[in-house]
Amino acid sequence: MVATVHSLKPRKDPSLDAMIALASTDMNAVNAVILDRMQSDIPLIPMLAGHLIAGGGKRLRPMLTCASARLLDYPGTRHHKLAASVEFIHTATLLHDDVVDGSDMRRGSKTANIIWGNPATVLVGDFLFSRSFELMVEDGSLKVLKILSNASAVIAEGEVNQLTAQRQVDIGEDRYLDIIASKTAALFAAACRIAAVVAERDERAEDALDSYGRNLGIAFQLVDDAIDYASDAATMGKGQGDDFRDGKATLPVILAHARGSDADRQFWKDAIEGRRVSDADLAHATRLVRETGAIEDTFARARTYGQRAIDALGVFPTTTAKLAMIEAVEFAVARAY
Amino acid sequence: MVATVHSLKPRKDPSLDAMIALASTDMNAVNAVILDRMQSDIPLIPMLAGHLIAGGGKRLRPMLTCASARLLDYPGTRHHKLAASVEFIHTATLLHDDVVDGSDMRRGSKTANIIWGNPATVLVGDFLFSRSFELMVEDGSLKVLKILSNASAVIAEGEVNQLTAQRQVDIGEDRYLDIIASKTAALFAAACRIAAVVAERDERAEDALDSYGRNLGIAFQLVDDAIDYASDAATMGKGQGDDFRDGKATLPVILAHARGSDADRQFWKDAIEGRRVSDADLAHATRLVRETGAIEDTFARARTYGQRAIDALGVFPTTTAKLAMIEAVEFAVARAY
Repeated sequence: MVATVHSLKPRKDPSLDAMIALASTDMNAVNAVILDRMQSDIPLIPMLAGHLIAGGGKRLRPMLTCASARLLDYPGTRHHKLAASVEFIHTATLLHDDVVDGSDMRRGSKTANIIWGNPATVLVGDFLFSRSFELMVEDGSLKVLKILSNASAVIAEGEVNQLTAQRQVDIGEDRYLDIIASKTAALFAAACRIAAVVAERDERAEDALDSYGRNLGIAFQLVDDAIDYASDAATMGKGQGDDFRDGKATLPVILAHARGSDADRQFWKDAIEGRRVSDADLAHATRLVRETGAIEDTFARARTYGQRAIDALGVFPTTTAKLAMIEAVEFAVARAY
Repeated sequence: MVATVHSLKPRKDPSLDAMIALASTDMNAVNAVILDRMQSDIPLIPMLAGHLIAGGGKRLRPMLTCASARLLDYPGTRHHKLAASVEFIHTATLLHDDVVDGSDMRRGSKTANIIWGNPATVLVGDFLFSRSFELMVEDGSLKVLKILSNASAVIAEGEVNQLTAQRQVDIGEDRYLDIIASKTAALFAAACRIAAVVAERDERAEDALDSYGRNLGIAFQLVDDAIDYASDAATMGKGQGDDFRDGKATLPVILAHARGSDADRQFWKDAIEGRRVSDADLAHATRLVRETGAIEDTFARARTYGQRAIDALGVFPTTTAKLAMIEAVEFAVARAY
């Protein structure tokens, strides 16, 4: 047998379409669970939750659960509730994130905290988080509960870690990667792993899907970080330069700061501490991240994680599902080419 | 056999001492779990959580789990982790409450949101909430997970319900009781019920303990509400008049408003909407709640719930544990006599 080696030389215009098609039947069921289970006798709850949930997110995490279930040829439907549970955890996190960051726009709409205020946004996040556990309990797998309760604690730790690192330009690449591994990649990993649990596959399959999700999550986040400085890029609903204006020390900044002159470092320190937020400052920052190779190297790091995600799938036979999951990685890392 | 009827004619100076003594060995173990499991590699987490957790709360909810386990002669130790889990849910709720209310003092200390800010307080609450589910998953009872995940969702719904009712003087007694049943009593009920689950007792024992906890929780909350207007009362760390100054339409206000003249109603509307917050206004409000019998009747409602809590224990034999749990009810409702 000749091994099929999939390497990350993206085809022209990779897209999520194959994964969306792969998961579409399942996702209809998942969306029905989401809609049903965000209801409450307290009208503000579905109103506020629905604003974000209906607001045009890709539902990438539940889609990964569904794609993973297809990869394993799982014939059942248990993953529908669990995928909805994953999306509720994600939505709760986004609601709390927007309060924590004081964000006013997400996915091209006003954030819930701007429309309904911080108190309601915090509390509806808590509701969705509780509801996500109710869904898991209904499914009844202690293994899934363990995976997702652990992921939730790791996400919260990652968020606090990020908060204590905020407006510091010199946190270093390792700590930054720790933060995004916790706050972003942990839920990607869990979303994929639980498919192996419901399909009753062995630890090796669980670990492979966990690794796929985790590395894809890191790749996605790094590309998001790079795109914020790549003016010709599709912007995924983010205004270009948002991270810069918010003083976020993402990887492009960390690299550009580390590689810069004394003057550059002072510029970055001033910027991240909030003293340089003009358009001219953004233009200067964009020049620095390009000249130091920080943008290209952030994309390169993302490609490495993307390749790891693809390699993690090596234990599975090459099927339509696997090819769709590979193209999703290519899409993730190719967004700014 | 002659039935032993326990009726709520409080002894002189009832106290929590008997319940504290009953639960003390268990609570040492619970406190060790709490201390151990609030740790994290992110130093801000134990610092912020520890501020509230070490801040002199009575730990009434985990104590109720332990007392209930004693009542049932449960010989094991599973309830230690679960009682810690209950306290983590409660602590997470308090942290988020203080953010939602913009509170600056709790239990005589500055609140976490004042010291570390809203963002960190929201996120550490999320962490404790996730950690509470990790503890439940370690215990491994799906029945307990169901009880506590449901209680968590009900609490969050109650909090949102309260938020949408805020600064409205005419919400009515029924809606007010709905709110405190959700936001306060649901966790008291769950804390007691789970003891019957770990002790593997039947549904009847579960329901009895649930009822004891639920009614005790409502009684506690109503007495807290009344004490806020009862100037000669022990104040449980709350400044007298706090609810009034915060514009909270608690039961004494709802009753005084319903029973008042047109002028009185206008006064209450102005007060709850935040236009009357002076010491003279508080004095006037205190006079109105006394003259209309609103204070005495709030205490009377609390005594009714207290009696229901005691009657719920009727199915259990009279033991030291039961007598301690009865005295806890007497303490709850007698605090302002």
